[in-house]
Formats: sequence, C-alpha cells, structure tokens
Amino acid sequence: MKIYLDSREMPSHFYNIVADLTNRPLPPLHPQTKKPVGPADLTPLFPMELILQEVSTARKIPIPETVREIYSLFRPSPLVRALRFEKALGTRSKIFFKYEGGSPSGSHKANTAVAQAYYNKQEGVKKIVTETGAGQWGTALSFACAQFGLECEVFMVKGSYDQKPYRRSIMQTFGATVHSSPSNLTQAGLEVLREDPDSLGSLGIAISEAVEVAVQDPSTHYALGSVLNHVLLHQTVIGQEAMLQFEKVNEYPDIIIAPLGGGSNFAGVSFPFIGEMLRGGKSVRSIAVEPASCPKLTRGVFGYDFGDKSGYTPMLPMYSLGHDFIPPGIHAGGLRYHGASALCSQLLKDGLIEASAIQQIECFEAGLLFAKTEGIIPAPEANHALAQVVREAKQADEEGKEKTILFNLCGHGHFDMSAYTDFIQGKLVDHELEQELLSKYAASVSTDLLNQG
Amino acid sequence: MKIYLDSREMPSHFYNIVADLTNRPLPPLHPQTKKPVGPADLTPLFPMELILQEVSTARKIPIPETVREIYSLFRPSPLVRALRFEKALGTRSKIFFKYEGGSPSGSHKANTAVAQAYYNKQEGVKKIVTETGAGQWGTALSFACAQFGLECEVFMVKGSYDQKPYRRSIMQTFGATVHSSPSNLTQAGLEVLREDPDSLGSLGIAISEAVEVAVQDPSTHYALGSVLNHVLLHQTVIGQEAMLQFEKVNEYPDIIIAPLGGGSNFAGVSFPFIGEMLRGGKSVRSIAVEPASCPKLTRGVFGYDFGDKSGYTPMLPMYSLGHDFIPPGIHAGGLRYHGASALCSQLLKDGLIEASAIQQIECFEAGLLFAKTEGIIPAPEANHALAQVVREAKQADEEGKEKTILFNLCGHGHFDMSAYTDFIQGKLVDHELEQELLSKYAASVSTDLLNQG
Repeated sequence: MKIYLDSREMPSHFYNIVADLTNRPLPPLHPQTKKPVGPADLTPLFPMELILQEVSTARKIPIPETVREIYSLFRPSPLVRALRFEKALGTRSKIFFKYEGGSPSGSHKANTAVAQAYYNKQEGVKKIVTETGAGQWGTALSFACAQFGLECEVFMVKGSYDQKPYRRSIMQTFGATVHSSPSNLTQAGLEVLREDPDSLGSLGIAISEAVEVAVQDPSTHYALGSVLNHVLLHQTVIGQEAMLQFEKVNEYPDIIIAPLGGGSNFAGVSFPFIGEMLRGGKSVRSIAVEPASCPKLTRGVFGYDFGDKSGYTPMLPMYSLGHDFIPPGIHAGGLRYHGASALCSQLLKDGLIEASAIQQIECFEAGLLFAKTEGIIPAPEANHALAQVVREAKQADEEGKEKTILFNLCGHGHFDMSAYTDFIQGKLVDHELEQELLSKYAASVSTDLLNQG
Repeated sequence: MKIYLDSREMPSHFYNIVADLTNRPLPPLHPQTKKPVGPADLTPLFPMELILQEVSTARKIPIPETVREIYSLFRPSPLVRALRFEKALGTRSKIFFKYEGGSPSGSHKANTAVAQAYYNKQEGVKKIVTETGAGQWGTALSFACAQFGLECEVFMVKGSYDQKPYRRSIMQTFGATVHSSPSNLTQAGLEVLREDPDSLGSLGIAISEAVEVAVQDPSTHYALGSVLNHVLLHQTVIGQEAMLQFEKVNEYPDIIIAPLGGGSNFAGVSFPFIGEMLRGGKSVRSIAVEPASCPKLTRGVFGYDFGDKSGYTPMLPMYSLGHDFIPPGIHAGGLRYHGASALCSQLLKDGLIEASAIQQIECFEAGLLFAKTEGIIPAPEANHALAQVVREAKQADEEGKEKTILFNLCGHGHFDMSAYTDFIQGKLVDHELEQELLSKYAASVSTDLLNQG
C-alpha cells in the first residue's frame, strides 16, 4: 500500500523544532576563543541565509520556489505500508516506511543539498567543497550543484572510495571532482597520512580537508550533509509529508525509527511529529538507531566537541565519542561519525527521544528479509532502522499490543551491494568496543565548557 | 510533473495485440521437424497457462490477483514530464517518460517475471532456470522466484558477469544461483568454450545453456525475459497505465519511443496505443531503437531463425542477424540479441512501427544530459530511447512543430556506472559493422520457411 501526495501538497516551509523547545541547545563555540560564534565567524564557510537558518528560532522557514521545483523531481516521496514484510515477521503491528531512495542521490540527502546549493548560488558562490562517507551526501551535492551550474569538489572517506567505485562514478556523472580522503591536497590530510599512510579515513578527517579548501578561496564555500541545525531543518520535509500521508489514511505512528549518523535523517522524519507532541498533540516515541561500533548516543559523553578531526570547526554541544575516534570499517559508512547533532543530543538529554545501538549483522538480517519481501534493497544505514523495527514489532507482539511503526527508509543500497555479498558469504563481522578505548577518546569531549556555553 | 495512479487504477488485464492484427505472425516451427510447434512441444519448458497465452488471440487476459498484489510493490509506475530535460534541449515539444526503474529489479522486467513465476508455481514447478544479459532480467526473476519460494538459477552472459559484480550480488541477495555463461555446466557452454575459451558470451548462448538445464528435470522450467508473445503481453501494463495517465492530463502521445532488445520493453509501452490506433483510434508513430552494433531491425533479414545459439528453441518468424551473430561488447547488454520478437517483426514488416539504429556514444550523450537535468541515471538500454527522443525533438523544432513524445525509461543505470565512467573518460567506442560480416551470419536466417510457416 502506497500513499502518494500531489506535488501541490509538498510542504511550503521547513519546520524548525527550536521554536517548540523549552531547552534550546547551547550555542556553538569558536574553536580557538571558546566564545559563542557569531555570524561573521561562519561567513567563510556558509552563505548568510544558511547562517541565519542555523540560529533561527522561527517555527517556519519558507522553502524557495526554485527549490520546490527541483524537489518535484523526487518529492513528495511515497509513504508505504510494508505489508509483505509484516507478514514475513508475523507481526500484528503496522509497519510504514517513508521511501527516500527515489531521489537523484538515492537517499534523503538531496533534500538539503538542493537547498544549500540554491542559497550558495544566490550569494554568488562558484564552488562548493564537501566531504562524504558512504557517498550519498557527495552524490546529492553533486546533483544539486549541477542544477545551479556550481562546481563541486568532494573529499570521500578512503574506506568508501575504495569499496564503492560506482559511487565515485555517479558523482562524476553529475559533474563533480572526487578525492580520496585523507588526501595529500590539504594540511589536514597530510598530517593524518604522516601518522598512518594506510589510514582508511573518517568523516571527521574529510570534513577537515573540505573546510581547509573552502576557507582559502572567497568564491568557494563549504557544505555539510548533516549535524548542523539548518541541515536538519531542510530534512523536515520528510516528516511533514509523512504526517499528511498518515492523515489521509487515518493513521498515526506510535513509534518513529531512523538511523542516526549526524542526525539529519532522524530529525527529518521525527521532528515534525515531536513538535506536534511538544505543542500538546499526540505522543510519539522516536528512536534513533546507531551502529554498536559507533555508539555516541548510548556510550558517548555529552559535552562540547569539534565537528572534525583537526579542530577547524566550531565546538558543538553534543553526545560525542571524541573527535579523534575512528570507528571500525563497518558498511554503514554514513553512520561512522563521532558526534550527534546538537539538536538530537539535546532532545536525547531531555528524554524526548530514545537511542538504540545495534550490531551490523542483526541489521543486515533485517535488511535482507526486507529486500526479499518488499523488493527494495535498503542502504546499510537504513538496515539499522529496520533491525529496530523488528525489535519493536516483536516486543509489541510479546506484549499482545498492536503498534503503528514508521521508519525512514533513507536510501537504497544499490551502491552497497558488496556489503550484502559479504553478509551472504558470512564475512560480515560485529565489533565490540572496549570501554577503556572509548574512555580514552571521550576524554577530549569538554564537559567544563557546558557551564560556559 | 509526475502523474501517479492509485493502486486500484492498475490494469486488470494484459492486452493482447494479436486480437487487433490483420496479419498475425506466422507460427513458431519445431527446430527439427520444421513443422508448427504444438503445446506438447513446449511443456518441458513452460507451464500450460503461458503456452496458452503464447497462442492466444483473445484481446484481454486477466491478471491474477496475487500477481497484482505483488505488482503493487512497484506499480502503477509514474508517468513523468521531463520539464528540465526539455528546457536543456530548448525544445518546444513535450517529453514524457514512463519510469520503470522503481521496481525490485530496477527495470520493467519485473512485470513479466512476477507473472511467469506465478504461473509456474501454480503448476507445481520447483525451480526456474534462465539467462540474463545486462542482469536486469535475471534480477527480476530472482525477486519473483523469492516471492513464491521457487529456486532460481541464472546463466549470465560473461561480458556482463565480469563487468557488473553488483548485478550478481543483487541476484544472490534475492536468493538466486548465478553462473557465468558460457559455462562448463552444459554441453552448449562447453562447445562454445572449446571454440573460444575467452568467449564473452551472448544472450543466444546463455539461452541454450538455460534451456539445456531446464529440459533435464521435469520439476524445472525455463523462463525467457523477452521475445515471446506472452512476455510482450505481460509488459502491456506499462502502456495501459500510460494511456490512463495521459487521459488524466488531457494529453496523447504523437510519438512513442523505446529501446528494442527482444521487444518486450518496446511492446509494453507501445502496443496498447497501437491497438487503439488499429481499432480506429488516434494515430501514433512508434519507434523501436536498436544499437547500431546489433541492427536486426534495420539491417537484419526477415525470416525464420532460432532464438538461441545452439538451435534448441523453436524457430521464430522474425528480423534476425542470424543466431550465430555475436554483437560487439557494448554497454547496453540487454540489447545484444540477434533477433526481434515475432510480433514486433511483423508490425515493422507491415509498416505499423518504425525502427532506428543509433551508436552508443550518441546514446550516452543523451543519457548524461538526462541524468544531470532529471536526476535519474538511465540504464544504457534506455539511453537508446533518449537519443531518439533528442532526434525527434530537434526534428520537430526544425519543422516548427510541437510534438508530444512518450518514451519508456525502462530502467535505472545504477549497476552500469562503469559505462558512464568509460563515457566520461572518452573510452567508449562506436562499432561500424561491415555488410559482408552481416551477410555471412544472416545466411542462416531461412526465408524459404516463410512460405511453409
């Protein structure tokens, strides 16, 4: 069962949850002075409109007409009831998913990429530099830049660069230049390579490289695919559409589930529903799922930390494993990030959302069953949501309850087939992280600054 | 602009163009006796219901409810107006496409795979063996078999097997066993390997292998992804949906374009419209596009020929390059077949459709522009349709006309990214075929049998 919306029913604005929060996140701090950053600190990286969105407390921010026009290539996305998956699980619960895999990048990332490229173009920027992990964000930005005639340069985490040649190829097809990160093109990259010439890289390192390139040229900006408020904001089109789609079939989710790398995917689907709850509407449980091998929400420290490896970015108040932490090379590259967005972190701290950490084999078991029954091969990131969906459905069945579960199928896994081959051949391994190791890296997360922030 | 249909608006029947033809195709002939084949000749390969469909003259054949239920995972498929592509071309014409890339296999092949698996299951078959070129058909059948608990074994043309490891992987994810063809598992394969140990294979060879395996076990059947009447029949859901979608926006195509490998894709989108025309409805130009390196429609011979390399299959009345012809290793693996279905061949012979042969570089130029503007990376096969769309739009502009063009975007190119890389890097080559070579192979096409058939 698919619930479609007409293109005229596409959201007209982004939803800003900050407007509905009692406890708003603490401000970002300047990496050197440790004082709250002002707009001027960010202008080398972002266009002013995005900086304003980053600090906005308005509930609604209008979506520009040009952005909506490009959205209409892939939005509104369908809300689907996974009837055959439900049947295979033998559950009494109803399982719905929002399918974001139909976009040009094959994931939700296109939602913010188009908006960010638009605002940069408006401000006369010529080129955008970014990082990418699994490749979904880099692909989305490549496509978005092509729509506005912007150059696009992508630092791709080496692990993924080597593992996913087709991802490189799709970015190049959309016209982008792609580098393996750590590269020898930046100081940040060279430093990492000096320490470890075989480094597989990390999102933290790739961000440092992209930021370093962006600040050197006034006509070049940087773009981030998750973590920041404005990125989460753009993704709320997902949840807003889902809400309208549920309305059309007289349903409402009891539980919302999404994977969490930086937080934009999770925020995108859940924030509009959480906002509804905060304004006195229906109650909803929102569960962010992270890999057990990168467990910032369940085993990280809440404090101020850098967004990147080299400490170029502002410090953010967030759950973090420490910016030097490099997660094991699991297949869900998009979830291999040391921190969670300030907004998601604040909501977790305040008990408004829940977190769950799952090992990758359990995730792929759920993903394979979903592929066989629903005919969509989920991205490894999305398999994390699926594993939690299975857990919740089983739990409800055991308790004799019938839940309505919504999860965000954030992207397809067409460029991750080697992960499925590994899984089928029994080559996938789970990673147990020792507390000692985690504590070592977490020491760099500053809880002292929380009082100052 | 996307035009969706509700799942209740999905076609309730397959449309059989035979009912509306004045000149029906001649019957298939037995490979040894050269007499028309009877149902008994085909029972080792196909379930009776499909054999009956193969010879049916009824206009409408009901789609079983179970098949429609599985279709609802990916059908009705959207009809989309390619506004940004039109703008990039600067054309006055309207370009619409039916998007079949949202299916489990990423192509139109799922339409017939689900139906064929269903009828085989109904008849107690345990396993289906098939061939695949680009991998789209094998993927579709793998998924379909998984829905009915059937085993699936796929002989994949070696050129594609080596070029597309992810295609193998997706078939295995759906539970199929995949062999590189020519293989050493069959007499047909061994014979080819004896002559040429480095053979890249062909669809004709892979069909021989699959048929050979199927006939050896009564609980195993064979399935073909194109060419036969019943396969074309199942694909007519595409054109039927498109017709209803055009109706909703008060449009009607002047020109319908699709690539032609065996003919099912082309037939699927065009036959319902051609049928309308044959019954006195609106006139439409339907153009089948083939690669210039496998030009059966434009440079082949109309006569009786085998469907496979080894002469195991019945002989069909068709345009053929000769069953020994092995096309150059172009990237559109799905179009590397020596013959065209009897139905498409008959329509071409009778002037009811047109044919066009295009070199692959022109195709990829059109495909790249489409990817950048519409955000969908077309399969190399679909790029052939796109190149013809560009030609028709330009032609209309030159003549000061405004046409409504429909093409079938039969699949996405996510598993064909190496082709795009080759194109971007200037490594793609066009192949000119000498008439002498073509004549040599075409000598095996029997025009004498046309009188007998």
